[in-house]
Amino acid sequence: MNPAAAEAAAAPLAIHFDDISAAAQRLQGVAHRTPVLTSSTLDALTGAQVFLKCENLQRMGAFKFRGAYNALARFSPEQRRAGVIAFSSGNHAQAIALSARLLGMPSVIVMPQDSPTAKLAATRGYQQGQPGSEVLLYDRYTEDREAIGRRIAAERGMTLIPPYDHPDVMAGQGTAALELLQQTAESGPLDLLLVCVGGGGLVSGCAVAARHLNPALRVVGVEPEAGNDVQQSLAQGRVVHIDTPRTIADGAQTQHCGALTFPVIQRLVDSIVTVSDAQLVQAMRFAAERLKQVIEPTGALGLAALMSGRAPDRVKARGQRVGVIVSGGNIDIARYAALLADGASAP
Amino acid sequence: MNPAAAEAAAAPLAIHFDDISAAAQRLQGVAHRTPVLTSSTLDALTGAQVFLKCENLQRMGAFKFRGAYNALARFSPEQRRAGVIAFSSGNHAQAIALSARLLGMPSVIVMPQDSPTAKLAATRGYQQGQPGSEVLLYDRYTEDREAIGRRIAAERGMTLIPPYDHPDVMAGQGTAALELLQQTAESGPLDLLLVCVGGGGLVSGCAVAARHLNPALRVVGVEPEAGNDVQQSLAQGRVVHIDTPRTIADGAQTQHCGALTFPVIQRLVDSIVTVSDAQLVQAMRFAAERLKQVIEPTGALGLAALMSGRAPDRVKARGQRVGVIVSGGNIDIARYAALLADGASAP
Repeated sequence: MNPAAAEAAAAPLAIHFDDISAAAQRLQGVAHRTPVLTSSTLDALTGAQVFLKCENLQRMGAFKFRGAYNALARFSPEQRRAGVIAFSSGNHAQAIALSARLLGMPSVIVMPQDSPTAKLAATRGYQQGQPGSEVLLYDRYTEDREAIGRRIAAERGMTLIPPYDHPDVMAGQGTAALELLQQTAESGPLDLLLVCVGGGGLVSGCAVAARHLNPALRVVGVEPEAGNDVQQSLAQGRVVHIDTPRTIADGAQTQHCGALTFPVIQRLVDSIVTVSDAQLVQAMRFAAERLKQVIEPTGALGLAALMSGRAPDRVKARGQRVGVIVSGGNIDIARYAALLADGASAP
Repeated sequence: MNPAAAEAAAAPLAIHFDDISAAAQRLQGVAHRTPVLTSSTLDALTGAQVFLKCENLQRMGAFKFRGAYNALARFSPEQRRAGVIAFSSGNHAQAIALSARLLGMPSVIVMPQDSPTAKLAATRGYQQGQPGSEVLLYDRYTEDREAIGRRIAAERGMTLIPPYDHPDVMAGQGTAALELLQQTAESGPLDLLLVCVGGGGLVSGCAVAARHLNPALRVVGVEPEAGNDVQQSLAQGRVVHIDTPRTIADGAQTQHCGALTFPVIQRLVDSIVTVSDAQLVQAMRFAAERLKQVIEPTGALGLAALMSGRAPDRVKARGQRVGVIVSGGNIDIARYAALLADGASAP
């Protein structure tokens, strides 16, 4: 072990299992305990016994609700009064907007002016009835969202919650794996857990939960081929920054993982594999056709890795009990219809 | 009460609650106990508290598995040896094919020559590995499927299982409502149950189960506007035959309900309402967008009735606890994509 690796192995991680247990307590009766689906067709196809944790059925349609709510639930009375600010055009925006309203605090979501109308409407919908909440639009080409955020946060005393690099967010996301392991425990332990990777909030939280409950379980992260920054980061032993990747998996279009998530991934994630956009569409189509589930491209990363045999050699799925976190189902329906139609005409 | 009505009220029904309990025992560990989904968006939209029993997540993608398996599980050893025959190009075909294989008996499914390739493939897939099983094609324009069926049944000693007008089929379908009532009992009784109506197998079984467990619960059947034969039958007090209706709800393109299902519907179903194809597409789109569920047009009948406010005046949904049986999710993906895309461009 070289000195840098030794240092990494010794450094304390941002979260521990107790943080995830505590998050699960906070989420009880608020987040959905999402169902775990099985499919004999999928089992026959992969030779594995597959358990799909359907976070597309989570409130607001993605696992992001878990982390956002957990973080906001820990605010002090002063923080609650002033409220929360977030930058996001994706699921984090909706997760923060909904969690803030449920906890009775104002939220400001900073979104690009040219965000899809459906996303703006959904975010505003979740803010409805909560005074002091708003969506703040900025021009991606001429304005600096960080500067806008800093100004609002300072003016209004609001707390910024980032989408992944935050201990409470990571701990909240880990409750997805905690539940999956509880829900599948009766029939025996899992051998392999496949989790999609963007900034690493979900995979790091899930790895902490899963490896604590079952140290033998291998956790494999899945990135889009075009955006394998975490795979590169693990190879180089440091957080690698990449250009915004061109992939349909918009939730994994991150340029780098977090300063807090990376050490957890290094320590507890077995490996990272990648899948192509075409494989994502195939998995989404399979999910619609056989599982009757609408899943967004990012949500299909784990399933696509399993179906395309991209799980690495030493964690082959065949004969194994495999958990897959299906992370979300938020996708514009016209775009979804187009992807299904494309997939349908593919060979 | 006129003499005919008095006679109807006195006649014994084809099934009783005990038949449904017994069916539930037979299905335990074989059929999926499908999840019940809730959605705060749907509740806000309808003013009701809605519980969706997701039979699109049942084995082979529809409730039909329940009735088929229950019927086949009751075969005598002689019947099992000879096997089962069914006419169907829809979910009943796949339900019989799968149930027969699970019980280790041959199945012959008589399907039109011009059935969609996907349906033929799915049915053959479920028969795979079961000797003596086959799909038998006939020409809809020149051949009589009943004659073909009678000939095969006689030659091979096979038992014909019809899609709905059979006590064991009706009792099996009733387990969907039995489970829904069990799964929702903790939070209180349901006020209203919406069930799609084709030949009446599902609605009759569900009505027997639901009204036995909760006599105050109103059961409302939902038919496509273009094929309201059961609504007409109730009005006229006799089974009305109609031309094959033109509707996208292919599972409800029945020309008449059954001699066994009709008396149950007369006695236990509160009323029948209808919805248009456009309302079905709207409900399917809502299911994809907000519930992340793929549902077939027939599967959307109950949800469409609820969303379009078609529930009759005296069983208004507002303020009520409403159960909806989402009956299935089997639809050709290209066609599904086209319906979603159409819906997306509608006003």
